[in-house]
Amino acid sequence: MKPFQLASREYCASDTVITIAAPAGKVYVGEGYCTVIAGPCAVENRPDYLNLAHRLKEMGADILRGGLFKPRTSPYSFQGLGRSGVDILVQARQETGLPVITEIMDIRDLDILYANIDILQVGSRNMQNYSLLEELGKLDKPIMLKRGLSATIEEWLLAAEYVLKGGNKQIILCERGIRTFETYTRNTVDIGAVPLVKQLTHLPIIVDPSHATGKWKMVRPIASAAVAAGADGVMVEVHQDPDRALSDGKQSLTPENFAKMTSQLIKHAQINLKQPATALH
Amino acid sequence: MKPFQLASREYCASDTVITIAAPAGKVYVGEGYCTVIAGPCAVENRPDYLNLAHRLKEMGADILRGGLFKPRTSPYSFQGLGRSGVDILVQARQETGLPVITEIMDIRDLDILYANIDILQVGSRNMQNYSLLEELGKLDKPIMLKRGLSATIEEWLLAAEYVLKGGNKQIILCERGIRTFETYTRNTVDIGAVPLVKQLTHLPIIVDPSHATGKWKMVRPIASAAVAAGADGVMVEVHQDPDRALSDGKQSLTPENFAKMTSQLIKHAQINLKQPATALH
Amino acid sequence: MKPFQLASREYCASDTVITIAAPAGKVYVGEGYCTVIAGPCAVENRPDYLNLAHRLKEMGADILRGGLFKPRTSPYSFQGLGRSGVDILVQARQETGLPVITEIMDIRDLDILYANIDILQVGSRNMQNYSLLEELGKLDKPIMLKRGLSATIEEWLLAAEYVLKGGNKQIILCERGIRTFETYTRNTVDIGAVPLVKQLTHLPIIVDPSHATGKWKMVRPIASAAVAAGADGVMVEVHQDPDRALSDGKQSLTPENFAKMTSQLIKHAQINLKQPATALH
Amino acid sequence: MKPFQLASREYCASDTVITIAAPAGKVYVGEGYCTVIAGPCAVENRPDYLNLAHRLKEMGADILRGGLFKPRTSPYSFQGLGRSGVDILVQARQETGLPVITEIMDIRDLDILYANIDILQVGSRNMQNYSLLEELGKLDKPIMLKRGLSATIEEWLLAAEYVLKGGNKQIILCERGIRTFETYTRNTVDIGAVPLVKQLTHLPIIVDPSHATGKWKMVRPIASAAVAAGADGVMVEVHQDPDRALSDGKQSLTPENFAKMTSQLIKHAQINLKQPATALH
Repeated sequence: MKPFQLASREYCASDTVITIAAPAGKVYVGEGYCTVIAGPCAVENRPDYLNLAHRLKEMGADILRGGLFKPRTSPYSFQGLGRSGVDILVQARQETGLPVITEIMDIRDLDILYANIDILQVGSRNMQNYSLLEELGKLDKPIMLKRGLSATIEEWLLAAEYVLKGGNKQIILCERGIRTFETYTRNTVDIGAVPLVKQLTHLPIIVDPSHATGKWKMVRPIASAAVAAGADGVMVEVHQDPDRALSDGKQSLTPENFAKMTSQLIKHAQINLKQPATALH
Repeated sequence: MKPFQLASREYCASDTVITIAAPAGKVYVGEGYCTVIAGPCAVENRPDYLNLAHRLKEMGADILRGGLFKPRTSPYSFQGLGRSGVDILVQARQETGLPVITEIMDIRDLDILYANIDILQVGSRNMQNYSLLEELGKLDKPIMLKRGLSATIEEWLLAAEYVLKGGNKQIILCERGIRTFETYTRNTVDIGAVPLVKQLTHLPIIVDPSHATGKWKMVRPIASAAVAAGADGVMVEVHQDPDRALSDGKQSLTPENFAKMTSQLIKHAQINLKQPATALH
Repeated sequence: MKPFQLASREYCASDTVITIAAPAGKVYVGEGYCTVIAGPCAVENRPDYLNLAHRLKEMGADILRGGLFKPRTSPYSFQGLGRSGVDILVQARQETGLPVITEIMDIRDLDILYANIDILQVGSRNMQNYSLLEELGKLDKPIMLKRGLSATIEEWLLAAEYVLKGGNKQIILCERGIRTFETYTRNTVDIGAVPLVKQLTHLPIIVDPSHATGKWKMVRPIASAAVAAGADGVMVEVHQDPDRALSDGKQSLTPENFAKMTSQLIKHAQINLKQPATALH
Repeated sequence: MKPFQLASREYCASDTVITIAAPAGKVYVGEGYCTVIAGPCAVENRPDYLNLAHRLKEMGADILRGGLFKPRTSPYSFQGLGRSGVDILVQARQETGLPVITEIMDIRDLDILYANIDILQVGSRNMQNYSLLEELGKLDKPIMLKRGLSATIEEWLLAAEYVLKGGNKQIILCERGIRTFETYTRNTVDIGAVPLVKQLTHLPIIVDPSHATGKWKMVRPIASAAVAAGADGVMVEVHQDPDRALSDGKQSLTPENFAKMTSQLIKHAQINLKQPATALH
């Protein structure tokens, strides 16, 4: 018997499709769609974020990302704008009509993020922060659960089970690379997780090729690979000027390269009968 | 330049020795001492815990452990007694005179644990829960920081840096095994971390051979190895009836085997000119 | 400076394309082609192998595989037909007109394999068997060099360098999964190796999704992912009756599923402007 | 059922002790002894090697090591003196009376090494070179089988089984570090392998802290840890002038540090009731 229950295919044979209502219409994540989430690693300031948000919308992004609370390995690195940046995401959402996603690190930020953000992301470092997962299980709000750096697929699905057990069924899994001995890349994307997760569970899965590789030149091929393997979409980092990014510049696409990636992605997705996730398209 | 600063040998050349005041006298963790922390994985009920606590004291334990909040991979596993068990640890501390340690998972438990517990443990799953680390940095209370399952030594010391940066200098590092491809053992104890940490930092380091191996038969040899390599002590799981433990029975020593381990441990420690922490009592 | 030289892009900017002359015409491996290598893990007997070979040709295989010398973890497992099976591969080559590939484990088999086989494969266990690599460097014969289970990309390219240094430029790299902590799959396919190898070296790279995953259900999606990521082809295990295979049955496709995979693969390959290697026949 | 048979405790309950006859008397490897193997990574020239050999004997080495055939990751690194250096080891053996060990990489060197060397070492890269293992199984000569960089304990014991199956029962296992994500050390020594191997098999096991750590400062503590954990000895690299070594200088002890290590090692060994392995002591 598999240790996870509510997450299992046996419990729910049909694919879960997440519906996100945003000003410009509904966006879907799940089987049949190829959802593209894009934005900078961290929100740095209002004008740059708004400017980029508009460009990303034109180029086919379905959901906008932007980190406010950044879990940084060193306490001396830029930690994000925090609560003061929430309003920037709200404005970007209003102006573009697209839903927004940001990471939650601390239960004490739950109120402000719940009220303003469309999807709450649990980062890989917090995948087994069970107190946080239990709180998120009480919400009626989509959760994106990133795989921990050394989490087995079973542990990952059991983390999802913590949220499901609380009553929240809206979970998007995100493969973002695991830790191995290889040092050329930041992490090793476990592409096999995609078909395996599709087989074991009814939850949608997307891939984050930016964190998984750490190199922008690898983002496009790995995004294509993810969709070809059956992923329901990708989340990528885009920055207007990657060389000047406050974090993760090396793995960020320029808007131009993002557009190239998206057009290629859709072709691979169509072989698997998937369509762009924004109802507007 | 090393990315950690307050944790580095360059910042503080002399070894940090942690002093823990308890009813029966002070207990030390750090260079020159071989401190033995023992107890069950989880506190299960009052009479069993108190009974075991007295036996462990007789057998040479310096500090009592007992989990109240258990971070379990599955939401369907026993999750610990929670806040209602704090009083059991308080009574054990009072009766034996030994200090107690337990894990903190949630910032909302900080008040009750701060008021009653001698050492607060951060588990491997929360090693990069920076919100928690920052709160612990504000306390005047010893913290035991377990290494994450796939944390590099650098990331581990940077997690310690989050606590040190807040002003709390009382950190005990605990190597508890890392995740590798080997499946015979639960984890792979990184014995090299012991001399390396001693070289890189002034903080004390102990080893947890119970979680690192997952097999009680390996606990004694790995505990000996840890001390021979220069560790400042060990933390081991002991249960009166391992076969009936609610968690981690397979890796728990019986009290009899714990006594055998301790007597051998002291011999290895003496070669490195270390003395049991209780010797000062 | 990169430690590999003859393998590097700096040494040779244009892509190396391997040409294999076979009775039915030339087959190519390299940029612009999507070469499909297929066959059973081990050659088991003459009629089954010949029968399968014909079916694979009809279904679009470009090269036939079949192990004669099987490096098995246990000395008690089936070790392959050895030298007595060479003639079966020769007959299959003659009848189908397709080139054949088999693994070489022992320098003493070099003469017979050189005389009869089109591509000599170095298995992952022998990737750093430098005596063997040096002998292969003296030949005018294509070599397929599988990545070692825990070999970094740098070590892999340095192993290729041993062959190149001897004068043999005809090397096909094969990613076949690396060893990680994940246990659901046999190995973890490092899909990032594909774009990275393309960037670092001029040598062609293919992916073996059968060994990488250990599960036949994952072979099709991972083969698609490999080609979408830019791989020059795939090598897959096919068996007429996987449940009765003497080795690796669980990861073997039936001929029917092989045909499905191939048709999908071609669609992904065409997005990257690649054509099947057989198109030139 | 365990997949290994001749190597198992079930097959042979009593510990195998290897006896090596050398000019100065017998040397033992196995339960009850603490055998110290020492020497430079590679034999570089005659006078230096002979000079060092005499010093090592005085300082308590039981067996002399010295690589002639060096499996180097890059084909451009120093590859060892090869066959021409055999005579240097022969002379050192004659002058000191100690047995010698060197690595065999190629079956074609078997004759000359069999005739002159006391223990043939199989390196980690060749642990699954089954052709080589089968040939060694036919000899009446002790074999040291190093664990592969990513070999599970089961795969390692199955490699030993290849040798045992051929009839050669004289196998010494050597743990030399496994490959993990940690980058501060060259490899991660799996100290748990020591008690586990002792439990699973009757074969002796030693530890190589030099390759396992890659840092000479870690060699002494890890050697002590190995013996405390129950290892039957250690193999360490010693060089008269580590800064000028042609290979592995960073992990080589000076003779002075070797002497310090040995004296401490014996104390830890005596707690486990082990004695030096040279009959002369």
